Amino acid sequence: MVRIDAFESALARSFRRLVPSDAPPRLRAAVRHAVFPGGARVRPRLVLAVAQACGATPEDAMPAAIAIELLHCASLVHDDLPCFDDAQLRRGRPTVHARFGEPIAVLCGDGLIVAAFDELAHGFAGRDMLGRAVSLLAAAAGAGAGLVAGQAWEEEPQPVLDRYHRAKTGVLFEAAAALGALAAGAEPRPWRPLGSAFGEGFQIADDILDRTASEFELGKPVGQDVSHARPSAVDELGLERARARLDAIRSRALVLLPPCPGRDELHSWLAQLMSGLFARALVRTPDRMDASLSA
Amino acid sequence: MVRIDAFESALARSFRRLVPSDAPPRLRAAVRHAVFPGGARVRPRLVLAVAQACGATPEDAMPAAIAIELLHCASLVHDDLPCFDDAQLRRGRPTVHARFGEPIAVLCGDGLIVAAFDELAHGFAGRDMLGRAVSLLAAAAGAGAGLVAGQAWEEEPQPVLDRYHRAKTGVLFEAAAALGALAAGAEPRPWRPLGSAFGEGFQIADDILDRTASEFELGKPVGQDVSHARPSAVDELGLERARARLDAIRSRALVLLPPCPGRDELHSWLAQLMSGLFARALVRTPDRMDASLSA
Repeated sequence: MVRIDAFESALARSFRRLVPSDAPPRLRAAVRHAVFPGGARVRPRLVLAVAQACGATPEDAMPAAIAIELLHCASLVHDDLPCFDDAQLRRGRPTVHARFGEPIAVLCGDGLIVAAFDELAHGFAGRDMLGRAVSLLAAAAGAGAGLVAGQAWEEEPQPVLDRYHRAKTGVLFEAAAALGALAAGAEPRPWRPLGSAFGEGFQIADDILDRTASEFELGKPVGQDVSHARPSAVDELGLERARARLDAIRSRALVLLPPCPGRDELHSWLAQLMSGLFARALVRTPDRMDASLSA
Repeated sequence: MVRIDAFESALARSFRRLVPSDAPPRLRAAVRHAVFPGGARVRPRLVLAVAQACGATPEDAMPAAIAIELLHCASLVHDDLPCFDDAQLRRGRPTVHARFGEPIAVLCGDGLIVAAFDELAHGFAGRDMLGRAVSLLAAAAGAGAGLVAGQAWEEEPQPVLDRYHRAKTGVLFEAAAALGALAAGAEPRPWRPLGSAFGEGFQIADDILDRTASEFELGKPVGQDVSHARPSAVDELGLERARARLDAIRSRALVLLPPCPGRDELHSWLAQLMSGLFARALVRTPDRMDASLSA
């Protein structure tokens, strides 16, 4: 349903426009490193799939897909910084600060946030929904209840857990689904619950894998929730109930699909995507922490 | 010409909308600390003055003035971080990272960048020029040739000096003048040279004061250009020629005023503003570095 190669080409074109060859060389290399090659590109795929189901062409929705991915990459670069996760590995390669140093990593994240808004303004120039798209992206990113708020809840002695979870992961998936609809000229609001459920599933799967998978499998450090004392679905529910909830979310997300011209196709695509993404987390493997404790 | 109390009230209202009371408390306190009380608010005053000279009301241009100031505050918070200037003092008070720690300071800057775009989208909702305003702000902020690029040039072994200077200070003044015109429905391009000259003057004055004033006078650390080996007009030209250039820029900026309904009033206002801002730098005082060397 979503041709990811078209997305990659469009993203590469945007990179060349947003950080042209006369930009500061190390910063430019760092932004490239943060964006290419990507991970699963799940959020932009969701944007494009929802847009297509609502009757848009991939081109109509491409700026929104790119903006969401740039924002996601920005959050990874800053979350990996020494003052947060101090992670050395991301997508199987050195993190931006490990490769380019901390100053360039801070600037790389800043530049990617700005680039996300630049992309929307450029790609949606002259279209009525530009203002709503910028507001929607800003809410998903911002200090009120967006990604920035999500990360800031980790700095609170007593985080409000549902706000933390929603802001930390759910909100960008919500925005992805909503922006896909908006790019197709559809009302974005009915698409939020789908994005939210998908995001919750993604977070739970991540919490499970942080405890059961290896660094080699994930291409990033594991055991981070425990070492950073972060709220985790595994701590909250235990491994088995976390898996059960993930399985339930997978079914619920599909029920939440709003009516749209391409609903059936989107349904199959989403079911397949979630099966693939959540498969590793749903397979019964022991909690690595327990295993190491009992070893 | 510009009623700064109206700006402060509007900024306070925007703060409450952008970082509402249910946001993470420490992050909210940090954003407030970064924005209130402000410095001279020179950039938003320029936005409002240009807009008014072009026939707009202060209300028409307020979102642009606020967005520019939020972006400026973001850049101060990140520039002060330990990995850059490691400054402990700003506007006579502890910097954000000194007061709230580094993680919150990184997030505070991120949140302020996002807030700037949020403010434009909210304040200019439904207005034709929204797209251009977002693009203009993004260019002034971004990794290509904006503030982020300016800071990144400091991380290069051989910075391209004119790009560095323009991106580091000039670009936000250019954007301020251009956004003021845009908010009034005027063509922004003719206003860039005025903003650029004003920004260059501001940078030279800053370079001079970094070498001649005391930390107490400035409310921030001095001698930063030398200790961080940053390009400085004082090193490039010497103190006397830097002052002469600053004086020349002050005259040139006024010649660069494009035709507009309120040109005469803007001319007087700008002349007075620049006299006030540059006065301390233009007074002949010895270079503190030389004085301490010869002591």
